[in-house]
Amino acid sequence: MRRKFQVVVIGDSREIEVNNKLAFETGTVIARNGWIVITGGRAGVMQAASRGAAEADGTVVSILPDWNFAVGNSYADVVLPTDIGYARNSMNVLSGDVVVAIGGGAGTLSEMAFAWTYKKPILAFTEAIGWSARLAGEAVDNTRTDKIFAVSSIQSLERELKRIFTFQRN
Amino acid sequence: MRRKFQVVVIGDSREIEVNNKLAFETGTVIARNGWIVITGGRAGVMQAASRGAAEADGTVVSILPDWNFAVGNSYADVVLPTDIGYARNSMNVLSGDVVVAIGGGAGTLSEMAFAWTYKKPILAFTEAIGWSARLAGEAVDNTRTDKIFAVSSIQSLERELKRIFTFQRN
Amino acid sequence: MRRKFQVVVIGDSREIEVNNKLAFETGTVIARNGWIVITGGRAGVMQAASRGAAEADGTVVSILPDWNFAVGNSYADVVLPTDIGYARNSMNVLSGDVVVAIGGGAGTLSEMAFAWTYKKPILAFTEAIGWSARLAGEAVDNTRTDKIFAVSSIQSLERELKRIFTFQRN
Amino acid sequence: MRRKFQVVVIGDSREIEVNNKLAFETGTVIARNGWIVITGGRAGVMQAASRGAAEADGTVVSILPDWNFAVGNSYADVVLPTDIGYARNSMNVLSGDVVVAIGGGAGTLSEMAFAWTYKKPILAFTEAIGWSARLAGEAVDNTRTDKIFAVSSIQSLERELKRIFTFQRN
Repeated sequence: MRRKFQVVVIGDSREIEVNNKLAFETGTVIARNGWIVITGGRAGVMQAASRGAAEADGTVVSILPDWNFAVGNSYADVVLPTDIGYARNSMNVLSGDVVVAIGGGAGTLSEMAFAWTYKKPILAFTEAIGWSARLAGEAVDNTRTDKIFAVSSIQSLERELKRIFTFQRN
Repeated sequence: MRRKFQVVVIGDSREIEVNNKLAFETGTVIARNGWIVITGGRAGVMQAASRGAAEADGTVVSILPDWNFAVGNSYADVVLPTDIGYARNSMNVLSGDVVVAIGGGAGTLSEMAFAWTYKKPILAFTEAIGWSARLAGEAVDNTRTDKIFAVSSIQSLERELKRIFTFQRN
Repeated sequence: MRRKFQVVVIGDSREIEVNNKLAFETGTVIARNGWIVITGGRAGVMQAASRGAAEADGTVVSILPDWNFAVGNSYADVVLPTDIGYARNSMNVLSGDVVVAIGGGAGTLSEMAFAWTYKKPILAFTEAIGWSARLAGEAVDNTRTDKIFAVSSIQSLERELKRIFTFQRN
Repeated sequence: MRRKFQVVVIGDSREIEVNNKLAFETGTVIARNGWIVITGGRAGVMQAASRGAAEADGTVVSILPDWNFAVGNSYADVVLPTDIGYARNSMNVLSGDVVVAIGGGAGTLSEMAFAWTYKKPILAFTEAIGWSARLAGEAVDNTRTDKIFAVSSIQSLERELKRIFTFQRN
């Protein structure tokens, strides 16, 4: 197989400093490991993660709810307008080998729920403002035996991503 | 306008007695008021609400994640297979003038999140097992000034539905 | 099973007199047989078919590409906003036991193609202006052994719909 | 802007030698110009175009109708499972600055129709077996004043892609 490990970073489009800082560093870590960053292509966490990856020479993909290229942030290598509104949230998480949640409002909550339904590993930052902190360490329902994995630092995120990556390749 | 008030009932497909009982009574109340019940068309809460409405001579619509008619429950007057998987969850809530949540797991959680994003009034049962109880009375994020409305009985559900219905017609 | 036979009527939103006349009569025939009319909910053929069914006391469903109820025509009993743009075209045809094409431009062409892919019976008017006339009597590709059924009058449409309906119920 | 010119290559999944040969060379030409190839990720034309680009060190993206990575061909750098069935056809064409059609059955026809609706430039091979040959040089309907551009060779394809690319950047 040709493709690299794909990491979806979710979080809302509002500009919240603590979340954006974590997102930028998350993007950097993903890119440095040679993996691909996928986001919903908008502002806030999505833009910060994309910029972090882009500045570390990583590959960045945006999946937009809109029909046109113009509305996305400017850090993506590949931009996919979908014109399906927030229904694109299910596609966002389906495109990941793993999903990383950083804060987030209702949109991010729908993505965490979809990621759970679609059996994706979910890593959630406890130190961000929003739903990632609230659901970190919890089960969304009893259809899975695992929990949303709580990460409290960029170091623990990288460690866990490497573990999942190694596991999936074996 | 020709169409009647459309009420989407969400909840998971597992068979949980307390949830199904509330769902059946919810369907009955909606039908008796002459309104339309819309669900995701599967088992559990979706089936119970549909059956409640059907037995009260109401109109029932199912929006299925699948491509074929056969997988839905048998209480719908109109069945819409979508073949878009759980992305149909966003469509479910968009089809409602109001959304009623009864328990629910990850799928229902994604629908409550979408309902919040799409500015739909949300009524959530506090006495059901699942996400409706957990989010009743809460705000999903700060993009809206209202909260998910907590309902503790079929009577309070009917009262609130009538209030919203009257408000939307005026 | 509770639901009635569902007939999707496709055609474009422009106002073309000959197409609208056929659409109105198609809606009337479907309603008089006790079946349900489903359309994309916009103007032109969609509105004419919906009006024809509504005035014959039939049940009409609109599946809109938009997020809000307000943009659809006013003849539907059930309105389903999808917010997925023209991707809703695949859902339109999936909701039919049979698909009736009346004229049509690019949107209708995509629906005829989807109807073919999803193995739906397709009836196409030869006397309408647009793609239905062009593809009537043809195979879209060689994945099916049948052809798009050419109908040249409301009478032949009704005869063929009854034949399909009888076949599907047996 | 960071992203490169995105070229969507459409055509069906059957293995037709003349179509696959054109698709492979199309992929090669796109990659040599530094552009991105996007396809529906399946066999036939999609695979051949992806392989052509991959072997020329290009970037390849697959947009799958399925929920899982495994079903796509093995030449993509980025794989996006959508789980929305053939509704993904509208997304395929939305992801292109330009759409290239090589033969094709009903699925490709739906994509050419969507590309027309979404105002994308469409280039169609006259020498391939399928819908590209049939619609090359034609207007799908009268909502646009241009026509589907007929290309009869890889050379004319490359010339036209460069013209569109130059035009869009200015």
